[in-house]
Order: sequence, then C-alpha cells, then structure tokens
Amino acid sequence: MQFRHPSDKDDVLRTKKDAFKIPEGVIYLDGNSLGVLPKNVPARLAEVVEQEWGMSLIKSWNEHSWFDLPLRVGNRIGRLIGAPEGSVVACDSTSVNVFKVLAAALSLRADRKVILSDNGNFPTDLYVASGLAELLDKGHELRVVAPEEVEAAITEDVAVVMLTQVDYRTGRLHDMAALTEKAHQAGALAIWDLAHSAGAIPVDLKGAKADFAIGCGYKYLNGGPGAPAFLYVAEVHQDNVTSPVTGWMGHEAPFAFDLDYRAVHGVNRMTVGTPAILSLSSLYAALDVFEDVDMADIRKKSISLSELFIKKVEEKCPQLTLASPRDPETRGSQVSFRFEEGYAAMQALIARGVIGDFRAPDVMRFGFTPLYLSHQDVVDAVAILADILETGSWDRPEYKSRAKVT
Amino acid sequence: MQFRHPSDKDDVLRTKKDAFKIPEGVIYLDGNSLGVLPKNVPARLAEVVEQEWGMSLIKSWNEHSWFDLPLRVGNRIGRLIGAPEGSVVACDSTSVNVFKVLAAALSLRADRKVILSDNGNFPTDLYVASGLAELLDKGHELRVVAPEEVEAAITEDVAVVMLTQVDYRTGRLHDMAALTEKAHQAGALAIWDLAHSAGAIPVDLKGAKADFAIGCGYKYLNGGPGAPAFLYVAEVHQDNVTSPVTGWMGHEAPFAFDLDYRAVHGVNRMTVGTPAILSLSSLYAALDVFEDVDMADIRKKSISLSELFIKKVEEKCPQLTLASPRDPETRGSQVSFRFEEGYAAMQALIARGVIGDFRAPDVMRFGFTPLYLSHQDVVDAVAILADILETGSWDRPEYKSRAKVT
Repeated sequence: MQFRHPSDKDDVLRTKKDAFKIPEGVIYLDGNSLGVLPKNVPARLAEVVEQEWGMSLIKSWNEHSWFDLPLRVGNRIGRLIGAPEGSVVACDSTSVNVFKVLAAALSLRADRKVILSDNGNFPTDLYVASGLAELLDKGHELRVVAPEEVEAAITEDVAVVMLTQVDYRTGRLHDMAALTEKAHQAGALAIWDLAHSAGAIPVDLKGAKADFAIGCGYKYLNGGPGAPAFLYVAEVHQDNVTSPVTGWMGHEAPFAFDLDYRAVHGVNRMTVGTPAILSLSSLYAALDVFEDVDMADIRKKSISLSELFIKKVEEKCPQLTLASPRDPETRGSQVSFRFEEGYAAMQALIARGVIGDFRAPDVMRFGFTPLYLSHQDVVDAVAILADILETGSWDRPEYKSRAKVT
Repeated sequence: MQFRHPSDKDDVLRTKKDAFKIPEGVIYLDGNSLGVLPKNVPARLAEVVEQEWGMSLIKSWNEHSWFDLPLRVGNRIGRLIGAPEGSVVACDSTSVNVFKVLAAALSLRADRKVILSDNGNFPTDLYVASGLAELLDKGHELRVVAPEEVEAAITEDVAVVMLTQVDYRTGRLHDMAALTEKAHQAGALAIWDLAHSAGAIPVDLKGAKADFAIGCGYKYLNGGPGAPAFLYVAEVHQDNVTSPVTGWMGHEAPFAFDLDYRAVHGVNRMTVGTPAILSLSSLYAALDVFEDVDMADIRKKSISLSELFIKKVEEKCPQLTLASPRDPETRGSQVSFRFEEGYAAMQALIARGVIGDFRAPDVMRFGFTPLYLSHQDVVDAVAILADILETGSWDRPEYKSRAKVT
C-alpha cells in the first residue's frame, strides 16, 4: 500500500475508511452535520425490515428484543462517552431530550430560577430552555453569556448550567470537568450537550460528574439522517427525577395498562413513546465500527488532521481567517474559517466534491472525522479551496444564490 | 380466480393484498398493533439509505426535500382523516404529540383547569396528561370517567376533552362530531387520538370541527415499527398556539441560528427536532397503497369482516364473550372477546399462525385490516380458534407462561 501523505502510513485507524461508503470524488468534511453511511447499515436495515418486521411482525418486540433497543443502543454510546452501563438511552430527538433533562434538572433545584447557558450553544437548546421557562411560568430566567464568561457566571442563584461542550460554529471546547465542578460548588447542576462530542472526542461523563447529557445520533455516530438522539442521567439522579413527558415506555409496567403512571427504575423512565425501530436499528449497526476503537486514537488523529488543515489553509488561503481556537486542546473535531464570501466559496467547494458547510454570517465549517478521513484528503481539500479562492471561481450567481435551506 | 368465500368475489379491495408481504401460513389480525410490511417499502428505504444518505449525503436535505418530509407525510395522512392540506405534520411519537397538543390546547383555555378523558383511553394519553398537569403545577385536574359518561361530563369547567376515538381494547367508537360539538358548546376544546382510526375508518376532522388530533403511523398506516406519529391542528388555531417544546424545526428560520425562538407560520411550528428521515421515508412509502383507496370502501369491508368474525365466533366458540359493541356503527375496525384463559388461548392461536393480541385482564383482541384480509381469512381464523378451544390445546405451560413483554 502506498501512502501519498507520510502521516497516513502510521495511522492506526486507516483501515476504518473501508467500513464506510464514501462517494467517488468526494472529500467529506461534514460528518459533524451528517455522518456518512457505514457499509454494514443497508444490509442490517434490510434484515430488520424484511425479516423482523416483514416476517416476525408483532412478535419481534420479544423475539428480536425491540423493547430493549433504546437501552442497547444507549449502552453502545455510553461506552464512547464515559457513561456506565444502564445510564444512557437512545430515544426521541435531541431537542425533545433537552426538554426532558432540563425539566428534570430544574425539578431537583426547585428553589432556584436561573438556567445558565452561552451564546455559542446550539440555538435549539436555548429555544427549548426559554420555551420550558415560559411553560413553567415560575419566573425562570434563561441567562445567556459569552462562552468565556460562563465560569464567572456560575453564581449561587444558578439552578442549571446547560452547555454544549463543542461549539457548533467554532469548535471551541468547554472544560467539562472544571465547569461541572464549579457548578456543583455553587449548588447547581450541569447538563452537557454532546452533539459535537460523541464519537469525536473522548468524553468522561462519570469522571466529570456530569448530571445529565444529551446528544445526536446522526453526526459523528453516523446513525443516519434524523437518527434518534441519546440521553444520559447520572446514577445518583436516576430514581429522583421523572420525565416531564410521562409516556408509556417510561412506565414500570407498560403492558399492565394501568391508568396511573409509575416511572420504571433507572434511565428508561426518560423514554416516552414507542421506539423508532428502523432508525434505532440503523444507529445500532452504525456503532459497530466503534467497537474496537479507542477514543484516544480518534482524538490523536483528529488533532493531527485539523492541525494539518489549519497549517495548509493559512499557507495557501490568506483570504480566510481562523475562527476556531488555535490550541487543539481547546477545540473539538472541527475547524472554522471566516470569509466574507464564505457562502459562495462553500458552494463552489461543494461543486468540486469537497463538502463542508456554512453557518451565517460568514463561517465556513469543516468537520474532521478520523474514521474515514486521511491526511491526504486534507491536503487535497485545501488545494481545491486554494484554487477556488485564487481563481475567484466562487464568484458566480449559482453559488451566491441562497435558495437552499441549509 | 376462485373465491372460497362468496363475499370475497365482490370485494373491491381484494387486489390490495398483493401490495403487502404476508408471511406464508399467517392470518394477521394484529394490524391495529403493527401493520404488515408493504412490499414497496424495502426498495424505497434502500434507495433513501444508499442513494440519498449514501451518495447525496448532507445535500439531500435540499436535493431530496428531506426538510419537507414531515409535511409531505402529513398531507398524505391528512387526506385519510379529513384534514386540509398543510394541517397535519408527521413527527415524534404519539405520546410526545399528545403532550404538545394538550399543552397548546390548555394555553387557549387558561382560565379552566379540567382535562376530561375516559378510562377507555390508551393509558399513555392519561399518563402524559397527568404528567403535564403536574409539570404546570397550576391546579389542573385530569378527570377520567367511563366512556359512556363522557357526554354528560362535558361541563363548563372543562378546558379540554381529550379522547381516543376507537377504544384500544373494545373497539368502541366515540361520535367525534357530536362530542366535539358538545365540547364547543361548553366552551371547551377537543383533542382526538386517532391511533386506531387513521386508515381504518373514515374520519372527518374538519367536518367535525376537531381542534387537535394525533395518531400513530405504525398501526393501520403500516409505516413500520415505531413509525413517526402525526399531529393535526385546526387552521383556526395554527397561529395561536406554539409547541411547549420549542425546537429549531418549528422556528421561522432554523438556519438563521438566531438566539431567540420565533415560531414558523402554520402546523410546522409543532415540529421540534431534526426529522427521522429513515422512519419517515418508510411511512411515506407505506401510504402509497392508500392513494387510490376510498375510506368508505375500507369501512364497508371492515364491517363485513368484523360482522362475519363475530357471527362465526359466537357460533363456534361458546366459551368466548363479545367485549366489543355489537352495533358495527359504534365499533372501529377491531373486535375483542373476553375469555378467562385468553392469554394462553392467544398464544396457542399465534402458534398456529393466527396472530391477534391480548390485553389484560382477559381480552383477546382481533384487528381487521381490509387492505390485506379476506373473508376467507376470517373463516379460517375462527376454525383454528374453535379447534383450540374445543380440544383445550391452549392448556399447556408454554402458552400460559407470561414471560413475554407484550
């Protein structure tokens, strides 16, 4: 085997790329938005559809353990984020899970009214928090500060500190352990959104003493578009909270069809409705690739890829300004650059097979997924980007038109 | 073509069975719990996975209109339940949707504190209502009466009447138009759970002036296990309510990433997180079979099948007692019988290929899905049931053991 870039030769993850279907001619730098298709997923999904649903029908809930699937998927994810067996469940969307854990956390701090977050949080988390505050109508305040001001803002009136560990625009990485400790010292609880962390960087929820966490199944976990999200509840809280949405799947005995709700023991009480078996099965299969992977190796390669990307872009694309932290220790697995014509430049880049994305007003965002990217991919991507910028080929009406939704 | 049962000859829906994969030797009387696999679903799902996700990746949100999928699925369902274009959206689970519409309805009747339901409602609806009342902590009362007492219980202190149209155990059918009118006369709003109605009986939400409705995608709509649920908001309310769970998909401009929530115009404001594209695509494809179907024909055949079933069971199985209304006009598309050893009898029946289900304490439940059942199926199913009861072959340890979850 020949390696065009020397760093690819020593890459312990290099064979992992074979587990994914990467379209010919594409360098995919958007795994932080939608992970690529793992090759084992289509066959597994076909089996679930044609054999389990098609042949075993309703019996599959028992015969194929569909009932346990939210917890089985949760346990696989748990291993990647430092969560003990039985503390993570896969269900609903990330937004719905934010609602559930935030309501649960506030119920544990009923005497306090402040939800602290930062303006680098993904907006849906803030929307859900302000909507919940309005619904509760008890004077809760969503206090939003700049990311660097969070630590100082953890005062004794804060009920819950709710943060996304990796900023979706800049990749800036919060220190989970330190901020959680600060929160606890102030008598507050900590909720961590791991949307851009799970599968991308090592996370130690238990070690950091995080109270709650939530995250996406369709980014670095490659579960497929709109894959179910996940939800973590620290063991110490599991039997002290209930979901604000008390659906039958969280009931102690759903098939007793009692008229009164009694929450089941453990994290399963945070589940609500009938689990989405097709989407969950895709996510379960997608997690196969992580089984023999050490998150430390993923982190090491992620830093190597993103450092190379920054170095090359700064060498070859002087029009762009780094929008991510320069120190890789304070950055997740993505790198963003600011460019006034970033939208058009990104469209031009995509047209040439280098897929990243754009976040208003001027951020060109590039995700680095160590499982299916090589150092040579990074070098090739920057060469195309440099060519687009040098030739000004982004300056075409079809690239500048913003008809697209994303 | 030969018809063993004369009624099958005149069945205008008889060719529809070919659109479904029914396992050899199975008579499936559980489409009210999990619909069978439509034959077109596996290929469509494979296309979404391998081509849309696999090849177009993130671009599919625009190129394959993934963003519109909740509304496109909703419009297909809307046609079956008398809902105008743009008033139904497919998203989340039924339980989560109950939470959303109930909170929305209560916000429109802030001066009233009573949620009226009946003890024939599916328990998750009651769990969600009592959980929401507890969360709101404003003295809301969930008042649960017997189904036949609902009408008289609609008094002027009732904020919302929340009912499942077809009782999940007995098939008893509420008069949606009459009860909605009564609710409105009393100044209350009406929420209808169509879990056992959509695709099974003609529903006219607009004609009945229903305020909100929700329902399942995986029962008579055959969308697959845990398929996304649907949610209806009457046009008059659409811009006067917001979801209690204010996620980014309900935002006016999700990709502006504003820090403040502004609900989008229309029913889409009730969506929350990133749509589950795989599950939604399965549901969308499953609805193909309804495109040229008149719900009146479905209803006619449903009554014909269930009347035949009752007649034959009462002739041949004197051990069983009808638990469903005898008048087909007050019954949905399912029939239940009580039998003390119903659990074991159902297991014995399933072992012989006749799949129904059991609901505690003693209800044997049989669903009739006119799209894939024939009159001959009904006759054959009763013959097997009669044999099991006559020979007492249900009386075996393996049938009596209740280790199974369902």
